[in-house]
Amino acid sequence: MNATLNTIDTPAAIIDLPRAMRNIRRMQDRMDTLGVAFRPHVKTSKCDNVVRAQVDAGARGITVSTLKEAEQFFAAGIEDILYAVGMAAHRLPLALALRRRGCDLTIITDSVVSARQIAEFGRGQDERFPVLIEVDTDGHRSGLHPDSDELLEVAAVLHEGGMQVKGVMTHAGSSYELNTAEALAALAEQERAGCVRAAERVRAAGIPCPVVSVGSTPTALSATDLHGVTEVRAGVYVFFDLVMHNVGVCAMDDIALSVLATVIGHQAEKGWAIVDAGWMAMSRDVGTSKQQRDYKYGQIRGIDGQAVDGYLLVGANQEHGIVARASGADDDIVTRFPIGTRLRILPNHACATGAQFEHYQALSADGTLEAWGRFHGW
Amino acid sequence: MNATLNTIDTPAAIIDLPRAMRNIRRMQDRMDTLGVAFRPHVKTSKCDNVVRAQVDAGARGITVSTLKEAEQFFAAGIEDILYAVGMAAHRLPLALALRRRGCDLTIITDSVVSARQIAEFGRGQDERFPVLIEVDTDGHRSGLHPDSDELLEVAAVLHEGGMQVKGVMTHAGSSYELNTAEALAALAEQERAGCVRAAERVRAAGIPCPVVSVGSTPTALSATDLHGVTEVRAGVYVFFDLVMHNVGVCAMDDIALSVLATVIGHQAEKGWAIVDAGWMAMSRDVGTSKQQRDYKYGQIRGIDGQAVDGYLLVGANQEHGIVARASGADDDIVTRFPIGTRLRILPNHACATGAQFEHYQALSADGTLEAWGRFHGW
Repeated sequence: MNATLNTIDTPAAIIDLPRAMRNIRRMQDRMDTLGVAFRPHVKTSKCDNVVRAQVDAGARGITVSTLKEAEQFFAAGIEDILYAVGMAAHRLPLALALRRRGCDLTIITDSVVSARQIAEFGRGQDERFPVLIEVDTDGHRSGLHPDSDELLEVAAVLHEGGMQVKGVMTHAGSSYELNTAEALAALAEQERAGCVRAAERVRAAGIPCPVVSVGSTPTALSATDLHGVTEVRAGVYVFFDLVMHNVGVCAMDDIALSVLATVIGHQAEKGWAIVDAGWMAMSRDVGTSKQQRDYKYGQIRGIDGQAVDGYLLVGANQEHGIVARASGADDDIVTRFPIGTRLRILPNHACATGAQFEHYQALSADGTLEAWGRFHGW
Repeated sequence: MNATLNTIDTPAAIIDLPRAMRNIRRMQDRMDTLGVAFRPHVKTSKCDNVVRAQVDAGARGITVSTLKEAEQFFAAGIEDILYAVGMAAHRLPLALALRRRGCDLTIITDSVVSARQIAEFGRGQDERFPVLIEVDTDGHRSGLHPDSDELLEVAAVLHEGGMQVKGVMTHAGSSYELNTAEALAALAEQERAGCVRAAERVRAAGIPCPVVSVGSTPTALSATDLHGVTEVRAGVYVFFDLVMHNVGVCAMDDIALSVLATVIGHQAEKGWAIVDAGWMAMSRDVGTSKQQRDYKYGQIRGIDGQAVDGYLLVGANQEHGIVARASGADDDIVTRFPIGTRLRILPNHACATGAQFEHYQALSADGTLEAWGRFHGW
């Protein structure tokens, strides 16, 4: 007998396949229309089946957040890989080993110190690393200001040091803090303009700078003009989640990842049902707590995905979750969700929730499930 | 050359072995003095080496939060296992299979519905499951009130249904919300008294109830009298963490788990150093945010573990963390923590942080490291 939502062990991370495939298709179509290459960030799924679907839909290369991701996906046959975290010198031998095995690995930097380390190591190994210079377009994390002197210094250190200045890249991660179409469109334009400006300055200094890479899921879905940009990166769009719903870039019914849980008890007088999905399953991410609508540890849905509006995972211990009505104690919780009831919980942050599991269960429209492995750690 | 803190890849989960072994010894000695058996909760480490040290120190059996933990530790030679999450009917065949292979697995329940499921399944399989009835002594999660009618109903359903009412158990998890010795001692006594009261009522109904099992790390370290209790359970004491430090049950120098990270960049004008440990390494647990001192995503220490007071991991993306001075931007951050600097970050919650890694690096007093595997998922 094939596994179904009624028979598999819980907690389980369920991918609603029609939704995930629709999310992949929509993003790729959008990028095709905007005339840019699309390079999905695979840190969200860390799953070969998902990434294969992204590539099959038209992605050109992938983005990774760890060299383990690069190793795994290179082993799975993907050669064009951007490692989008500032290169630490002690990892250069690992990056070199990947390149020597045929991986077209691009690395990034945002400082003269790091650029010198890359150039020195590369020269010593006779390896011309392709490097993107990270640009800061919204002040939320890493990167050099597009108008900074250091941007040109870094480009010169790399170029004169024999490395390939492949281009510039930025990530407007502050888009997660927005929730109006106007603000998102404005940030998308700020991201585009800042990154293009940086590329133009590098080129004006006489250094080729072909790639202009931008992106985050919210800005990718909000940009209307990507003039000067050559590629876009985004990750969480493949599953979406409650944070993205609050940002305003997906409908609740676009969310393709949920955690299947079983009711194991009640505290009737408190209106609680206890389920076997706690923070180990959901992750500790409470990203909606700072947004306009707080979903606590997740939004409750029925086993078939139908809405059970108003019920949230209001609390979580390691392997226990507390389901309750947000608007006040439900006196009928024991009959509403009897012991053994299976519920699906939409997560705040798909990247964090997925990481808690060793595999996904990919749910087809006909109700069949297929285990899709994912990897973990560094 | 052996791996050292200076050479291993980052992020890495470091166990300070002398501290962990001291934590294990102290807890066991305390339980020995109080005259109770100690059954450590292995959900914290999920690591055979750590659990072996707990057993070698005198633990009698272990507590688990998933049947996967039971499977793994039974395979490693531990037979006496308490699965301390309310039994779901669909998992009874897994529990049966473990028992049939020789595992002395005890399960728990806190409802008539679940007790009937256990008894019916057990009778059908000719298996007399040993069962603890879960008791609620502090209102924070699951369990039956010690004075409830349902407590006796559950005991009767199990007993008359041919199962073994092995005893009662409780977990005063609300201890994590306290921070004075007086309040902790009072909750420990409340936990003890409630659980003993439940056992006495079951015995008065003519049903043997030999085991009285209580515990949480804070109450285990605060109880002064455990009259009537037969065993104590605790988990996080083996590593401790910043939440436990705020609760007041460990010194900062008792914290045995830290995340080793490398500085990969700066935003000098903001006073930020960027490290390669984000929320994927630390987990999203910000448990100290509701306590008297908020450590954000963690307390920064030097590579040798020495204090770097006032610097916190103030922000975290998936693979990026932001190190900054809590009291205001440090103008000298670039020279204080140059690129390549290795830092160790004390976590808010050791159970959550450990779960992000595939293995620990066990650090001996002589500086050598040994990889200790841990498992993941369900």
